[in-house]
Amino acid sequence: MTEKAPSDRTRVKRIPGRGVYDCETIYEILDEGLVCHVGFAHDDQPYVIPTGYARDGDNLIIHGSSASRMMRELSGGINVCVTVTHLDALVLARSAFHHSMNYRSVVILGRATLIEDDAPKTEAMRLLVEHLIPGRWEGCRGPNDIEMKATTILTVPLDEASAKVRIGPPSEEDEDYALTHWAGQIPLPVVPGIPVPDPELSEGIAVPEYVKKYGRRR
Amino acid sequence: MTEKAPSDRTRVKRIPGRGVYDCETIYEILDEGLVCHVGFAHDDQPYVIPTGYARDGDNLIIHGSSASRMMRELSGGINVCVTVTHLDALVLARSAFHHSMNYRSVVILGRATLIEDDAPKTEAMRLLVEHLIPGRWEGCRGPNDIEMKATTILTVPLDEASAKVRIGPPSEEDEDYALTHWAGQIPLPVVPGIPVPDPELSEGIAVPEYVKKYGRRR
Repeated sequence: MTEKAPSDRTRVKRIPGRGVYDCETIYEILDEGLVCHVGFAHDDQPYVIPTGYARDGDNLIIHGSSASRMMRELSGGINVCVTVTHLDALVLARSAFHHSMNYRSVVILGRATLIEDDAPKTEAMRLLVEHLIPGRWEGCRGPNDIEMKATTILTVPLDEASAKVRIGPPSEEDEDYALTHWAGQIPLPVVPGIPVPDPELSEGIAVPEYVKKYGRRR
Repeated sequence: MTEKAPSDRTRVKRIPGRGVYDCETIYEILDEGLVCHVGFAHDDQPYVIPTGYARDGDNLIIHGSSASRMMRELSGGINVCVTVTHLDALVLARSAFHHSMNYRSVVILGRATLIEDDAPKTEAMRLLVEHLIPGRWEGCRGPNDIEMKATTILTVPLDEASAKVRIGPPSEEDEDYALTHWAGQIPLPVVPGIPVPDPELSEGIAVPEYVKKYGRRR
């Protein structure tokens, strides 16, 4: 893996110390996430829509209904921005001003390409299911022709991607360390709960291991 | 509270059953969230940037460094989209196609207004801190003149906001209920962890109750 050379557009401008560009960091953030926020503009109005995704090497895959406006717009090759964000902790500083959040985010700029051929489209659907729940593709019924037609798959290259990360304790003004306010972090992990079986589930179907052991950190 | 009349732009198009427009739902989703994704376009390129926010009645408040490009762009009154998303659960269907996520999201379209006067600006900063951690404003040092100048506060009206919610078990094709694949939900709650004191914290400063009891659901 090579280091991503950020373009002028993706270089993190405000706090350069928080900009991280190596592929490994970008891939880790993307692989841990479940929801991306897709931004596109139509008639000078931006829209930001949450949706699922997966990573296929150096491309992001997004999918949606073939009837959705967003997928139609994006299929046309307009500029898009896809952002994935993990909120890790609240950061409580002694001063209101320095309150912050620990987070990891990736911002991708580019244009989407429609995947039309059956074989790569099926592979993309496999990656989308495996991204959600590793091991699940073999544990469910694959898509039929009608479902394939009803699904639009797009890829966005990760050529122009940047990561931004904040970790650690609050940053304070020197004179504020003497204040008696509590300061520190409140971690905000996502903790998978006990699986809830479908009320229609037939008796005797056990919870699979990949569901029992479900977690996001790889 | 009245019902939000969705504009043509915010009406949920794809799955009308998932569109929810009442104020209460929109407010609840916004009040529980911590990070919004702000979308704006510059030179025909959309950008989607995660940031903190708060709600002040029928307005969303966002803030940032006065030196940030995003805040400067938005201050000019360009069209903006602000989206808040909660991912609640993975939904495992018997078919790959019907895999889904339970989520609650709000999409706001509008234009931002700069808050310049000291009194409303300080009030907005109070709301931002109280949105993060209720009770915290009285437990930290308020902003001084330099910090006020370094902060840009914008409001976006909630006039054109819509919510979209998916809850419940998988939706399957009728014939798939007979399959022997496990189906159900994996809940993905955010569970606040044990507070981590700042390494520089002076001895004898107790963890405040509002930190010990921290949670998002109101």
